[in-house]
Amino acid sequence: MNSVPEARRPLDGIRVIDLTRVLSGPFCTMLLGDMGADVIKVESGRGDPVREQGTVRDGFSWYFAAFNRNKQSIVLDLYSPEGKAVLERLIASADVLVENFRPGILAKMGFGPERLEAINPRLVSCNINGYGSVGPYVDRPAFDFIAQAMSGLMSVNGPADQEPMRSGQPITDLIAGLYGAFGIVSALRARDLNGAGQHLEAAMVNGSISMMAFLASEYFATGRLPERTGNDHPLVAPYGLYTALDGEVAVAPSNDVILRRFLTTIGLEELMAGPHYDTNEKRFALRHELNALINERMRSVTQAEWIARLNAAGVPCGRVQNLAEVFADPQVVAQEMAIDVEQPGHGTIRMVGFPVKLDRTPCAVTRPAPELGQHTREILELSGYTDDDIAALAVRGVIACAPDR
Amino acid sequence: MNSVPEARRPLDGIRVIDLTRVLSGPFCTMLLGDMGADVIKVESGRGDPVREQGTVRDGFSWYFAAFNRNKQSIVLDLYSPEGKAVLERLIASADVLVENFRPGILAKMGFGPERLEAINPRLVSCNINGYGSVGPYVDRPAFDFIAQAMSGLMSVNGPADQEPMRSGQPITDLIAGLYGAFGIVSALRARDLNGAGQHLEAAMVNGSISMMAFLASEYFATGRLPERTGNDHPLVAPYGLYTALDGEVAVAPSNDVILRRFLTTIGLEELMAGPHYDTNEKRFALRHELNALINERMRSVTQAEWIARLNAAGVPCGRVQNLAEVFADPQVVAQEMAIDVEQPGHGTIRMVGFPVKLDRTPCAVTRPAPELGQHTREILELSGYTDDDIAALAVRGVIACAPDR
Repeated sequence: MNSVPEARRPLDGIRVIDLTRVLSGPFCTMLLGDMGADVIKVESGRGDPVREQGTVRDGFSWYFAAFNRNKQSIVLDLYSPEGKAVLERLIASADVLVENFRPGILAKMGFGPERLEAINPRLVSCNINGYGSVGPYVDRPAFDFIAQAMSGLMSVNGPADQEPMRSGQPITDLIAGLYGAFGIVSALRARDLNGAGQHLEAAMVNGSISMMAFLASEYFATGRLPERTGNDHPLVAPYGLYTALDGEVAVAPSNDVILRRFLTTIGLEELMAGPHYDTNEKRFALRHELNALINERMRSVTQAEWIARLNAAGVPCGRVQNLAEVFADPQVVAQEMAIDVEQPGHGTIRMVGFPVKLDRTPCAVTRPAPELGQHTREILELSGYTDDDIAALAVRGVIACAPDR
Repeated sequence: MNSVPEARRPLDGIRVIDLTRVLSGPFCTMLLGDMGADVIKVESGRGDPVREQGTVRDGFSWYFAAFNRNKQSIVLDLYSPEGKAVLERLIASADVLVENFRPGILAKMGFGPERLEAINPRLVSCNINGYGSVGPYVDRPAFDFIAQAMSGLMSVNGPADQEPMRSGQPITDLIAGLYGAFGIVSALRARDLNGAGQHLEAAMVNGSISMMAFLASEYFATGRLPERTGNDHPLVAPYGLYTALDGEVAVAPSNDVILRRFLTTIGLEELMAGPHYDTNEKRFALRHELNALINERMRSVTQAEWIARLNAAGVPCGRVQNLAEVFADPQVVAQEMAIDVEQPGHGTIRMVGFPVKLDRTPCAVTRPAPELGQHTREILELSGYTDDDIAALAVRGVIACAPDR
């Protein structure tokens, strides 16, 4: 195979102008960078606020590093006419523009849809936002916790007898970013077919609604609201966390075949033949009694042993892992879900690896996260600015370059 | 603009052979269908189990309808040599193959990676799985609840003083499906560049790990485990649910600027000047006292009024909506996040709309979900099978056709 030329990655040659900050947008452009795009992160002043968030080690935020790998940084004053002129030239040469301002803000800055199309009719532009760009809440500020509340997620998350609960993951930010990345790559394919770019958007609330799955379907079909059920399944029993000798085991027997395997493995196979537990309906009504019977059996054997036995029997099960256990898990290690990236001048930074595995054109970190303004000069030079132009822009505060390291 | 030809959608002309069932895989192929792909759902026997799950109205499962729009159905016995021969011919003419069997099962059925490449070197094949195809857990059965437990999600979800809690959304299924769709469209672009297809996979546990965001970064940077904090922010106070006259308001003042706006709006602006609450550290330590002060102010005004005032002041806030409130919300209505699809013979079925909005090539439902085997004949004819071939395959039980409606 050594005569085969190196495969080009999915987004090789795609230039992304990235005006995003904090989490949803930077996650989107990180996904594009992982797939091979050249991502130019445009920052202002002290840069993305995340540079100053999270734990800083050896002078660098690990949170920032994780979500800004595979990007270059240019510092540009987007509120000055000269800064806007630079941005315009960058957009003219780009394939993709991503921003997570509130809808309409970019237009107020002078880059509304018509202007973008005039600058670059092949541009794919994407706005990651909270509520969408049409409707009464367009101007509301967005935040993950609020999108969780407004989208219905909190209404189904948490124990039955307590208040609605936010998800521990900042999930609406990340879903919106992921939908944005999916939409952008799709729009690039449409551009390949049609010759024209387009605008797209992904909203945090909409993305979270799309994750309601059968909960939404059942609500639509019946008009009945789903309830919070904690770790119980809303419809199926037995199901949940059971107590082994040295810890809990999560068990999900999702149908009768798997339930029979579960009960057989723990020595309770007779239950499904008896009169009390032979249907899911009866089991659900008597789930507390049933869970007590199951726990009595589970208690005598270790967690690891049950997990081995039950998995061998084809019963989905596992343990509740904290992050130390997750990243020490031999499976997670085999999947390379933690990676170490050398951050020049700041040591080695550990971060989450790649959730999509392509065998011919795998995702890769080809650049560590940038210093603020590290690539200002290089990018302006590539865009045709002379040394004199760059010096003049710097003197007037339109741009900033990182000190040479 | 009336002379412009209709824009082709991102996946127009892309043929997807869909061997998936239940949720993660069908969600992936639904996303591809929404973007214009021709999705051929290959079913066996009584078909995707979801056809018999969820509430059935007028003879059709609304859960199945929602996740299988924009697909055609062919019924094929994948365990018979003749059925495999039909599948082989379908794969030869396809662009994409998606399946959510456990890793290795498709190879056991005779369609391992080398065989797929021999049949169709331009094929993009995708496996949506639980743990990934390399590592000690490859053969374990997967399920959303278990992936939540194993990935660390449950360790950060739920109230501080209670057991780890699963998320109310089947989030690891849907994230894996969405990553799969992103990976497939990316691999199609790589094929456009390289001329060759490839294999990719998206695992539920890996996808969920990738959603840990700053929780993972902070763990890597400090070695300290994130804690469950319920509706409190792990680091910032005030933050959370506050009690207005007639209900709760979720408020997320994520930095000092926004916090000042919040406190000013509720008439507590003096707090940040005083000695007890002038830093986040102090506010966090005294958060229960601070929350009591805030609730005292919140209590006198209605939820709707606070939400209007706080949003106008630029403070992210909202209410915790159940699904009835979500789908009645004028913003959600404006975003068309519930759509009605006519299901011939079964009335009109309501389902969740499109979370990605493209302005030139919008997602659309061009077909309702298929009856079991509705398109068997049509697809086989397109693949070159004669009427006699089809009759013979049907007699031998290799295929099944839906009765004509």
